[in-house]
Amino acid sequence: MATDTQIRIGVMGCADIARKVSRAINLAPNATIAAVASRSLEKAKSFATANNYPESTKIHGSYESILEDPEIDALYVPLPTSLHVEWAVKAAEKGKHILLEKPVAMNVTEFDKIVVACEANGVQIMDGTMWVHNPRTALLKEFLSDSERFGQLKTVQSCFSFAGDEDFLKNDIRVKPGLDGLGALGDAGWYAIRATLLANNFELPKTVTAFPGAVLNQAGVILSCGASLSWEDGRTATIYCSFLANLTMEITAIGTKGTLRVHDFIVPYKETEASFTTSTKALFNTWVSPPSEHTVKTELPQEACMVREFARLVGEIKNNGAKPDGYWPSISRKTQLVVDAVKESVDKNYQQISLSGR
Amino acid sequence: MATDTQIRIGVMGCADIARKVSRAINLAPNATIAAVASRSLEKAKSFATANNYPESTKIHGSYESILEDPEIDALYVPLPTSLHVEWAVKAAEKGKHILLEKPVAMNVTEFDKIVVACEANGVQIMDGTMWVHNPRTALLKEFLSDSERFGQLKTVQSCFSFAGDEDFLKNDIRVKPGLDGLGALGDAGWYAIRATLLANNFELPKTVTAFPGAVLNQAGVILSCGASLSWEDGRTATIYCSFLANLTMEITAIGTKGTLRVHDFIVPYKETEASFTTSTKALFNTWVSPPSEHTVKTELPQEACMVREFARLVGEIKNNGAKPDGYWPSISRKTQLVVDAVKESVDKNYQQISLSGR
Repeated sequence: MATDTQIRIGVMGCADIARKVSRAINLAPNATIAAVASRSLEKAKSFATANNYPESTKIHGSYESILEDPEIDALYVPLPTSLHVEWAVKAAEKGKHILLEKPVAMNVTEFDKIVVACEANGVQIMDGTMWVHNPRTALLKEFLSDSERFGQLKTVQSCFSFAGDEDFLKNDIRVKPGLDGLGALGDAGWYAIRATLLANNFELPKTVTAFPGAVLNQAGVILSCGASLSWEDGRTATIYCSFLANLTMEITAIGTKGTLRVHDFIVPYKETEASFTTSTKALFNTWVSPPSEHTVKTELPQEACMVREFARLVGEIKNNGAKPDGYWPSISRKTQLVVDAVKESVDKNYQQISLSGR
Repeated sequence: MATDTQIRIGVMGCADIARKVSRAINLAPNATIAAVASRSLEKAKSFATANNYPESTKIHGSYESILEDPEIDALYVPLPTSLHVEWAVKAAEKGKHILLEKPVAMNVTEFDKIVVACEANGVQIMDGTMWVHNPRTALLKEFLSDSERFGQLKTVQSCFSFAGDEDFLKNDIRVKPGLDGLGALGDAGWYAIRATLLANNFELPKTVTAFPGAVLNQAGVILSCGASLSWEDGRTATIYCSFLANLTMEITAIGTKGTLRVHDFIVPYKETEASFTTSTKALFNTWVSPPSEHTVKTELPQEACMVREFARLVGEIKNNGAKPDGYWPSISRKTQLVVDAVKESVDKNYQQISLSGR
């Protein structure tokens, strides 16, 4: 049941991921699904039914129509990446706050157009990276910031792979140049890049260099690639992403005094709790101790935590005259910048790309 | 107590690592310590006492002298890397079998001289990489070769780091250009490279490219570096090694159907057992299951398994007229080749190095 304090969200597009986020909107105490749009009224209607949308949900048969709906505060936009710039700009111009699926755009130039439109219209934008909203992530950051237990970061390695089946590799929008044309890099790589940036307090690397051996499909879409990142002071990182290898979701961060490992950083093994392990000052000359495991309970699934945070920020703007929070677009932009640099390096035969001044 | 069937090993040099290997020789049922040499008789004597050498152990005050000892079958050589070529060649020429510490040489050209001398004199050579002799390693290989549980290898990431203290970073032979001049790459990197080669059935990569951001000391010795390796068919690997980061010893291998993780591959957390985890056909759309843990009991510590295998091969030659086993020098050579390529890439500003024809 919608209440006055709930942020009314419209779902713009009926992608697979919209099912998970629809459930999350339903679970978030401060948000409600107010409308859904597809390019056909029929499709929107059956999506609403299949996903237990409230009776009151308005059904729109076009994206234009949902933008004009005065009874929604915000839009969740899971459209193919190539459509983000057009529809996110239009949404901002209509004063709708935006929860935008990742990758946020085909490149940072497109994303900057979205940000300009959001700033001009005073709307909040946040990308759909769920895992950063898991309560576990705050504890990971706490460990990584601990000068005693972790020390200074030296390297962070992150990877996200899953094995797409024949149908996926032939038909999914993530392998189509005109749709989610950034392929495995924009999809899986986005998460790994976000993890390396998070471990580096979102300081951009100095250089990004893709590994020789990226796999592209016949249409030129990346199916698998990796890259190394380096910072001025000697910190390094590697990322790896693939649609061709068994599901693996790792963060290994190594500091001068400690090591952090997460094996399920994108989708935790359990919905109600999430774990990670840490080692501190492991000495090689004495016997090596196994790492300690830490478990964090999660009140809501991480995607509902994401919606709750987004709706909280929108509520602050709507009800209390607050300004949009600049943190979320700033980390989206940095993630996109590194995605772009990896792609550029792959395109330029694995040349080292400098991020200075970007 | 020495028996007739035991291989009589001389320890040539009293490095720190020689303590661990001396204990291993004592533990191996088919080997015994017969002699020890240092550049001074005093040092050799006190090393023998400190390490509970048998009363009968002959004490040599020079390396030349132990080479002439007719009552030893083999030499364990933990000398600084820069001395390997000289003393291993001399040992081979005296008909002594050689257990040689890693890295086996300063470069593959030097190692080839050692191999030529070993072949000419019919002696066995094996390098001192202990972890490959842990019974766990056979099970890792079994999983990696399993077309159902693991599928085809897509990528393997391995790292070995430990934080050297101030004294280590100033005085250890591993930071001195004239001694173990390959630094962290020859020491820690050796293990990570061996792990990536093992996962690739010792097929050499097509290219090796160091990551920008290697850290060298003022004398030009590598303290920290990483590299990506790529194979013709799209397989990739990364290695990372460092003297500047908390102790971490990881292998993550990802195949089309499975994932393998080892967190203590170089020195297992326990001496009597060793573990690893595997996941198979983890599906992203259903709920993700945690990996399964596998534990392998070890009858002897892995370093004693190494000595036992070395002594077994020497015994076959000595007692049964067998030929030296070519597998061990062949994998030493391949590991050294990749070490050399990473160093070359670092030296050439992170240029991609082709291994074709090497």
